[in-house]
Amino acid sequence: MTKKTPKKVVLAYSGGLDTSVILKWLQTEYGCEVVTFTADLGQGEELEPARKKAELLGIKPENIFIEDLREEFVRDFVFPIFRANALYEGQYLLGTSIARPLISKKQIDIARQTGADAVAHGATGKGNDQVRFELAYYALEPEITIIAPWREWDLTSRTRLLEFAEQNQIPIAKDKRGEAPFSVDANMLHSSSEGKVLEDPKDEAPELVYQRTIRPEDAPDKATYITVDFEQGNPVAIDGEPLSPANLLMRLNALGKENGIGRLDLVENRFVGMKSRGVYETPGGTILHKAHRGIESITLDREALHLKESLMPKYAELVYYGFWFAPEREMLQALVDKSQEFATGQVRLKLYKGNVDVVGRTSPYSLYDKELVTFEEGAVAYDHRDAEGFIKLNALRLRTLAARKRKMG
Amino acid sequence: MTKKTPKKVVLAYSGGLDTSVILKWLQTEYGCEVVTFTADLGQGEELEPARKKAELLGIKPENIFIEDLREEFVRDFVFPIFRANALYEGQYLLGTSIARPLISKKQIDIARQTGADAVAHGATGKGNDQVRFELAYYALEPEITIIAPWREWDLTSRTRLLEFAEQNQIPIAKDKRGEAPFSVDANMLHSSSEGKVLEDPKDEAPELVYQRTIRPEDAPDKATYITVDFEQGNPVAIDGEPLSPANLLMRLNALGKENGIGRLDLVENRFVGMKSRGVYETPGGTILHKAHRGIESITLDREALHLKESLMPKYAELVYYGFWFAPEREMLQALVDKSQEFATGQVRLKLYKGNVDVVGRTSPYSLYDKELVTFEEGAVAYDHRDAEGFIKLNALRLRTLAARKRKMG
Amino acid sequence: MTKKTPKKVVLAYSGGLDTSVILKWLQTEYGCEVVTFTADLGQGEELEPARKKAELLGIKPENIFIEDLREEFVRDFVFPIFRANALYEGQYLLGTSIARPLISKKQIDIARQTGADAVAHGATGKGNDQVRFELAYYALEPEITIIAPWREWDLTSRTRLLEFAEQNQIPIAKDKRGEAPFSVDANMLHSSSEGKVLEDPKDEAPELVYQRTIRPEDAPDKATYITVDFEQGNPVAIDGEPLSPANLLMRLNALGKENGIGRLDLVENRFVGMKSRGVYETPGGTILHKAHRGIESITLDREALHLKESLMPKYAELVYYGFWFAPEREMLQALVDKSQEFATGQVRLKLYKGNVDVVGRTSPYSLYDKELVTFEEGAVAYDHRDAEGFIKLNALRLRTLAARKRKMG
Amino acid sequence: MTKKTPKKVVLAYSGGLDTSVILKWLQTEYGCEVVTFTADLGQGEELEPARKKAELLGIKPENIFIEDLREEFVRDFVFPIFRANALYEGQYLLGTSIARPLISKKQIDIARQTGADAVAHGATGKGNDQVRFELAYYALEPEITIIAPWREWDLTSRTRLLEFAEQNQIPIAKDKRGEAPFSVDANMLHSSSEGKVLEDPKDEAPELVYQRTIRPEDAPDKATYITVDFEQGNPVAIDGEPLSPANLLMRLNALGKENGIGRLDLVENRFVGMKSRGVYETPGGTILHKAHRGIESITLDREALHLKESLMPKYAELVYYGFWFAPEREMLQALVDKSQEFATGQVRLKLYKGNVDVVGRTSPYSLYDKELVTFEEGAVAYDHRDAEGFIKLNALRLRTLAARKRKMG
Repeated sequence: MTKKTPKKVVLAYSGGLDTSVILKWLQTEYGCEVVTFTADLGQGEELEPARKKAELLGIKPENIFIEDLREEFVRDFVFPIFRANALYEGQYLLGTSIARPLISKKQIDIARQTGADAVAHGATGKGNDQVRFELAYYALEPEITIIAPWREWDLTSRTRLLEFAEQNQIPIAKDKRGEAPFSVDANMLHSSSEGKVLEDPKDEAPELVYQRTIRPEDAPDKATYITVDFEQGNPVAIDGEPLSPANLLMRLNALGKENGIGRLDLVENRFVGMKSRGVYETPGGTILHKAHRGIESITLDREALHLKESLMPKYAELVYYGFWFAPEREMLQALVDKSQEFATGQVRLKLYKGNVDVVGRTSPYSLYDKELVTFEEGAVAYDHRDAEGFIKLNALRLRTLAARKRKMG
Repeated sequence: MTKKTPKKVVLAYSGGLDTSVILKWLQTEYGCEVVTFTADLGQGEELEPARKKAELLGIKPENIFIEDLREEFVRDFVFPIFRANALYEGQYLLGTSIARPLISKKQIDIARQTGADAVAHGATGKGNDQVRFELAYYALEPEITIIAPWREWDLTSRTRLLEFAEQNQIPIAKDKRGEAPFSVDANMLHSSSEGKVLEDPKDEAPELVYQRTIRPEDAPDKATYITVDFEQGNPVAIDGEPLSPANLLMRLNALGKENGIGRLDLVENRFVGMKSRGVYETPGGTILHKAHRGIESITLDREALHLKESLMPKYAELVYYGFWFAPEREMLQALVDKSQEFATGQVRLKLYKGNVDVVGRTSPYSLYDKELVTFEEGAVAYDHRDAEGFIKLNALRLRTLAARKRKMG
Repeated sequence: MTKKTPKKVVLAYSGGLDTSVILKWLQTEYGCEVVTFTADLGQGEELEPARKKAELLGIKPENIFIEDLREEFVRDFVFPIFRANALYEGQYLLGTSIARPLISKKQIDIARQTGADAVAHGATGKGNDQVRFELAYYALEPEITIIAPWREWDLTSRTRLLEFAEQNQIPIAKDKRGEAPFSVDANMLHSSSEGKVLEDPKDEAPELVYQRTIRPEDAPDKATYITVDFEQGNPVAIDGEPLSPANLLMRLNALGKENGIGRLDLVENRFVGMKSRGVYETPGGTILHKAHRGIESITLDREALHLKESLMPKYAELVYYGFWFAPEREMLQALVDKSQEFATGQVRLKLYKGNVDVVGRTSPYSLYDKELVTFEEGAVAYDHRDAEGFIKLNALRLRTLAARKRKMG
Repeated sequence: MTKKTPKKVVLAYSGGLDTSVILKWLQTEYGCEVVTFTADLGQGEELEPARKKAELLGIKPENIFIEDLREEFVRDFVFPIFRANALYEGQYLLGTSIARPLISKKQIDIARQTGADAVAHGATGKGNDQVRFELAYYALEPEITIIAPWREWDLTSRTRLLEFAEQNQIPIAKDKRGEAPFSVDANMLHSSSEGKVLEDPKDEAPELVYQRTIRPEDAPDKATYITVDFEQGNPVAIDGEPLSPANLLMRLNALGKENGIGRLDLVENRFVGMKSRGVYETPGGTILHKAHRGIESITLDREALHLKESLMPKYAELVYYGFWFAPEREMLQALVDKSQEFATGQVRLKLYKGNVDVVGRTSPYSLYDKELVTFEEGAVAYDHRDAEGFIKLNALRLRTLAARKRKMG
């Protein structure tokens, strides 16, 4: 089976050096028409320079696509994973993982719109992102051709990449000349850093790695208190002010940043099989995760919560591996979302130098019942004597086991 | 089936007012001989006063048992749950839950030794502890008679309890005269507080509730760095100094306390069916949990870790509910312990005003491989091109699904 | 907390001796008005005699409720559990378990309609059915009073029950005078038998126990072939003939019966803590289970199927224990039903002397692709060389582990 | 990274046409020394012809390895998966899957012994077996070179394969000249058939496909009764006669064969991503599976069984995918084996024309207790009234949920 030569390719284009080199390489190597797609996912960079640069590299105006996806990203991708309390390997809030499916989806949309027969991305051959991009492409457009230059070309060192850029008149920002001390991915949910200075998991990450949060040590000496309102598991207001999904996350990011919240230094296991060390900053997401657990704590039934918790690792794994557009993720989402029907109410949080603590929760749908839990027996549906029967039947099988053990004596 | 009248009962006796009332009540109500058992689980109270008080209440010296269980508690109960990273409902480190099986086990041992036919505990009729005590009793001695005074007697208000105490010459400490603003359980792993001032989950827990940790705000302005050494999943040294299990946990407790670490304000779901609000302080345990995840991050295989994580909620639920001496807990422990064979090495942590962060990890058994993860392709067992095949076969079923969807179009 | 004395009670009434005694006992013991509810769940008994008997026992005509629930039972209770392939302890098709929630629901409906403040059932104090009835009552009407005569009264032997019946002019069928050799529960899905002649799990169940199926030995010597059509996981036609849910199940029951299909002799674990031995006959259900697996085998994605399979034991446990109207069951159902969207097509089965075998399956939504699976490489989306990369990356972590093992020598 | 050229390769050699072609191809294509390994796994073929053929093809006598692995296969590979009741996708007894790890392990052993630097197998590029072989190779010897001719060579049609054979003087059995109507894999546990005549899952498998079992229709008209004795989850005797693992399985195979037991026609999901249709015959295994469930039913605690059942799909998936020598499989095995400590006793089975039914079970460790389950209340540890408390506390959360629902009304 020979690979089809693509005629037109939609490239996930950031405007940076690497994807500019890819752009050129696609033109020269494949000789195909390139369509660029640049998304605003809240990564905090201007997008217009990307347009300029694409034009400079010979992309026709009608082939340059720039979209502000911030609201869609937060509403349809970030919030669903927070409804699930998803943490990969117990710790990672999936900030990079969750951005890839949306970018892929838009590339496929644009491919259909422009009649392109291929898509390309700038992810490397050892990472998770290549998998996330490509699983999404294939899930949405099974016959699409995928070009992953980092797996194909021979620009396998920084030096050769720069040479290629120079040979092809690709502008190189001054700070890109040298070897970067680490590489960064960013969107509205988080930024992640990895490589070089972080490569030895023995060494503490240097402060320069952190970009989105101040040091806890530098945060205010006085705690900040906020409230987050939820409706059906989604946050809808901060301190009583209704906010759109993206605005709400930006507000939380600002609060997290200034209180030194959301840093994570982690050795994690990639889907492609090796361990890697990364530093993540998820200021708003860290607050949101805690807040969501807070609203669940009074509005979710015990078994609903436990079932959800028991499936969370699987759900997080699926998102991390790139199986967003897979039926098993959708099945789990159906289960999770079913549980969120009454996850409505308000959580109060204390933010202080890296700490986020839930300090209060209220809900019109609260299942917490002071009468039930109070020490003294009341008029409510709880007879102390019921506990005896409850315990005895729960113990019955254990007593049978103990009797067997004794008999064997 | 009528309840047998017990002749001799082993009471879990703290020396406090409540269990002293129970002691007397057992003597007067059941007319039976009482054996007291007082355990040192590191709760931080003198035990000799308990002996004095028992004697005062007429217990024969040979019926007074006082035991220092601290090492056994940490080694055989605390460490196993930390090997599992157990968190109930994603947050609670199980400090109270894990103490009950050990106390129960010792009561049964003493019952056998003294020929007692019953055991008694001071847990109330609405809580989890009655279940934990009694499931353990039954699992170890299936025919034992269990007396749970709080479910049986008519001393159902503070006033009546105090009256009974006065009528029976039970000394009442001054501070026990009034209604306590909350109730406390403590052992070396944690202290928990609940009731009264904590009953409305809307209100922030007042500072007076916290007993084991200083406020993060009052902790040093400079971070403390420590190392924890692990062998097969168990911590064995702090800052290079080998310590016994109990001494190690005490050291971590001191470190946690002074850095304001380990506070948790939670609404949780009890096994007996209602929600309750508690405040937990687990200073050393909070550090240990993070440290253990740190050593696992470089020494555990991905799938070993994921399997363990997926079963952790079940494991934690079992411990919380009181099924310590149940075959399913032992089966899960076998699985967990199998994974810890190489969880050996050192973790470096930063402690700062409530935060615990892993900042470094090393191990002779590390699975982290710089060569594998490095950006540039090396001589190692990773061919960039392998990723394409990996992705394509992982995508195959998604492409088939997409083709179906299109066909139906 | 004293039990409220009920004024009007809705009794699940079969018309048989036991529930007639209960009826009378409720009148005499509680002095309360009794409303009878008799349901046709396809158990194969006339219902009009129940009306006559209720009248005879003094129930007012407006307090006698008789309902044909067969279609609702199969459509809303049986089919959902078959969409999940639910098997308790790997074997039991849940025939009794699934009938209880429906009966309970109707009792609560009637209680509301007639202003009754209590419900009663005839399940014994050692079985699962009491739990199933009562969990459903409470889940639907939290303040309802529940009367479970078998746990309360002193008619604890057959002799005393018969005495009570005679004293109260309750007609006793001749064959009820003696001790029955086993007890039976039946509905359209199955019949179950337990007790007496079955009590020693060492002994083979005698043939007289079986009521719904002929012996495989007595079934036709020639196989019967049938087709079952499915739509979204529900069977809709047999041999091409569209049938309502109840009619379809009856047809399958007839086919199963005459081919000796669906017998199961089992020792199972009750929710109340002990093991029991039962004989089940589920002729149509056994065929349906196999057929449903057949349609899933070509229409469900692998991971959708595996996720569903991994949760099936939990789902079956919930149904068996009586948690039908619980949020966790509903969450799992949402997950299961999401997977059934394309479980549409036809399965062909061979029925022969106790065996049911899927011998053919087709579907407009089939994911089976001859081209993909064929030995010789074709034009399709499968490059033999992809397998190498797939294997190598899947092996990467195993190789790293092996390298560690070797290093440790 | 260029592939190293191997000097000496250990080939899994059956003596058949395909692996003989591979043998020659390795000699001619790679120019390397070939070591053949032929294993007796009870596939029912003579092994000496393989030796002759290897010699004929120029293999030095010291490079020809033939081993009888039957006891090891059954004891260390088959029995462990039966202790777990492993069924892939709810139905398949893993007969092919479980043979691969053992063959791989022996090849690696021989490679070490002979100083070979490569291994080769005859599995095709679209199947599961290539994955199973290679994951095992890598897990045992991370730096080994693997040659998978079917993925590399250009003998991609039957015609070209035969041509190559003729050109290289490889004897071709007459019946191998034409296209086989299906392909077969066999060992002591099962035989599997797939391809060609089975490729359309709509069509019933023709009788000629079945090789190990007679048609149920042709089986005796009278049932055969047998007993199987178990010790710690492993079968040790048939009809009271102690047998070695392999002899026991052979005995069960004979019993299954003559009673038409163990046929399965299945569409399953391969690890490499597509669906395939296979016909399996596992006569003895089918009996053993049922028998093992029988002994577990009286000797395993409920929660031990349920935990095991909930993990079985994962365990079976791991074995099917080829992760036998992976830590997660070993962790699950530790959990499973822990549960089998008392799975000792005797099961009586009825075999009849394709049916296997457990009709009796006994054990010195039985947890079944007639006294507990009997209808009338006895002296045992069960008070009917306990059930009320048990139900009420289990219902508490459901009542709270119902109260919320009503309040929202």
